[in-house]
Amino acid sequence: MNESIHLKIKKQIPGSLGRTGVLSTPHGEIKTPAFVTVGTLAAVKALSPEDVASLGAQVVLGNTYHLYLQPGEDVVAKAGGLGSFMNWQGPTMTDSGGFQVFSLGFAYKKGVSKIAKESPTEAELEGNSEHISEHSALAKIDDDGVTFKSHLDGTEHRFTPESSIAIQEKLGADMIFVFDECTSPLAQKEYMRKALNRTHRWAKRCLDTRTREDQALFGIVQGGRYKDLREESARYIASLPFEGFGIGGSFDKDDMKEVVELVNKILPQEKPRHMLGIGEVEDIFEGVQRGVDLFDCVLPTRLARHGVIFTKNGKYDIKKIINREKFEPIVDGCGCYACKNYSKAYLHHLHRAGEMLGHRLSSIHNLYFMMELMKNIRDSIEQDSFLKYKKEFLEKYKNI
Amino acid sequence: MNESIHLKIKKQIPGSLGRTGVLSTPHGEIKTPAFVTVGTLAAVKALSPEDVASLGAQVVLGNTYHLYLQPGEDVVAKAGGLGSFMNWQGPTMTDSGGFQVFSLGFAYKKGVSKIAKESPTEAELEGNSEHISEHSALAKIDDDGVTFKSHLDGTEHRFTPESSIAIQEKLGADMIFVFDECTSPLAQKEYMRKALNRTHRWAKRCLDTRTREDQALFGIVQGGRYKDLREESARYIASLPFEGFGIGGSFDKDDMKEVVELVNKILPQEKPRHMLGIGEVEDIFEGVQRGVDLFDCVLPTRLARHGVIFTKNGKYDIKKIINREKFEPIVDGCGCYACKNYSKAYLHHLHRAGEMLGHRLSSIHNLYFMMELMKNIRDSIEQDSFLKYKKEFLEKYKNI
Repeated sequence: MNESIHLKIKKQIPGSLGRTGVLSTPHGEIKTPAFVTVGTLAAVKALSPEDVASLGAQVVLGNTYHLYLQPGEDVVAKAGGLGSFMNWQGPTMTDSGGFQVFSLGFAYKKGVSKIAKESPTEAELEGNSEHISEHSALAKIDDDGVTFKSHLDGTEHRFTPESSIAIQEKLGADMIFVFDECTSPLAQKEYMRKALNRTHRWAKRCLDTRTREDQALFGIVQGGRYKDLREESARYIASLPFEGFGIGGSFDKDDMKEVVELVNKILPQEKPRHMLGIGEVEDIFEGVQRGVDLFDCVLPTRLARHGVIFTKNGKYDIKKIINREKFEPIVDGCGCYACKNYSKAYLHHLHRAGEMLGHRLSSIHNLYFMMELMKNIRDSIEQDSFLKYKKEFLEKYKNI
Repeated sequence: MNESIHLKIKKQIPGSLGRTGVLSTPHGEIKTPAFVTVGTLAAVKALSPEDVASLGAQVVLGNTYHLYLQPGEDVVAKAGGLGSFMNWQGPTMTDSGGFQVFSLGFAYKKGVSKIAKESPTEAELEGNSEHISEHSALAKIDDDGVTFKSHLDGTEHRFTPESSIAIQEKLGADMIFVFDECTSPLAQKEYMRKALNRTHRWAKRCLDTRTREDQALFGIVQGGRYKDLREESARYIASLPFEGFGIGGSFDKDDMKEVVELVNKILPQEKPRHMLGIGEVEDIFEGVQRGVDLFDCVLPTRLARHGVIFTKNGKYDIKKIINREKFEPIVDGCGCYACKNYSKAYLHHLHRAGEMLGHRLSSIHNLYFMMELMKNIRDSIEQDSFLKYKKEFLEKYKNI
């Protein structure tokens, strides 16, 4: 029996699935609910591990697809694993590469997380990802795995459940994920059913092939916007001996709450649940309320690199000319390194001039904002005031 | 009388012009000889001020040409000056913009610092600077000043000795430079003489127009490779009440030692001398031996961003595939943050993947290398072993 991680539940939101807890991992504890910082290529973009730790981050997630291509899992393994390679002392995760091979193979669309069809040539949707939008039709799925082309050099590669786990075992993160098929929210139910069956078979194969006892394997619930499929998926995945669970795929914004609640009612209460790729403030509140323990998203750092700054009143663009001579802190009252030491005018200048320090300061601020949010959410649950905190926060917070 | 800075000479190299000292400025002391870190746009590229301070840097130089264009000297002035704007607590310098308007207006050539002719259209030399090589014929000189086009948007601007000083007074650095004409090392003597006379008239105009008593103004000696012109320039500039002196322009590598010695014999011993834009290890040793107190150069940080790492045995390229699985420190025995915490393999990966952290770690290392070199040079002078240290260092050090 794998006892690599353990979730100790501390406090429940009365009348709901939400809770605080402490997730113990081989590299330290994570206070949950927590926001997982994305470090795609074994580096949180623009930041050092000390930056990441000092802003309150607890856990870093590397992307298996990217690390497999560059520098390769063997290099990371020889360095002693992901954390050792990048000099991050705390807990780590890797995803399975599933999301990336599909998003690279097919297409992205704004507001729709991912699009997958049986024939990639049908995918003609508009791209919104930085380096993904230029690619299409680079992946092909069959019952055994996915053949895809590298976005770096076009070379052909193949992931199967077995190879994804083998790579993740070499990368050596504390928590890893099963290889699943990420379907389009626009997919028809007939295809979704087929894909779900495949994802379930793959989940089992991932469990069968794993060898490391110091890594926790998370199963992933799929099923898109179809409640019966989500329920079926949750029941099946929950029946397998995973150490944790991911909720994957995409939702219509309206469906999300219902689907997450449905799924988390079925998943075992004593194990951690990770909502994959979700990081908008509203979604985090709704997810926490319905029992999600972990979130990850590139949004805070990606937007930071574009000069978008998170505040309690919503986001603003530091590059706008109105900030040129504002010598007050980036966000008034914020305790982060960037806000304590630099002005809006300076950050505006750095972004306008393309200075790397601008990316770093903005990333520090936005991640600190997320960590503070999670801390306040945890505190509010402990103090039985989560719903009040949520209401007050979201009343002020306006998304751009 | 301007007493903004003061050089206290501590120890002389026996039988030579070289010395150690302490240069007091309104923002702290600088142990000399010192390497000045370049922070072109009010940021040392890829680094925070804490990074810069922690690697041992004592003073930061901003470029007037760049800061005038972006964000503009008024913004910097309203922020409280260069140091305050960028949150650098220590001493600061600005150059006059002269070098940039000429290098942008004319052309660069490898091994030749700058080329200036009366008619920009004659300049057809190969460029070697990152963003300068694309431009040519953007500057036009007359006896009153220089009209040039912005490399950012092509808009026309004009610098005169008076405007350069006015801008530098707004930027507010502790040490500023006169506006001079930077001639080509290939220029004929007839033109050099004419340019030198103009530079001398401009030096006087800079002195006449200055108003701030908390800023030190450095005169600049020009004269290219012509010893008689250098001597004449040194005598004239030394006769004016500057607080410090720059040695500008370019030299043939062979001439440099002689010219610097000639000039520094004439310049007043009690005032600091800055060798402009010089930063190769050999040149620093030769300059120090001949009485230079300050050096600045973009080389350590620019090469760092291209993955070139400084070591006592010369430089190496971390991007080369041979480093892919080298898990030892970047430079064995180095005490910098990068070498203490990361492997060659990781830095190789970061550069290959284009991660900003790679630029930062390499910049930290290369600047630390320069700061350690200067510290060891100072120590060797104090211990009467400079020539021995120089010989031993240069025997091992091979430039790429």
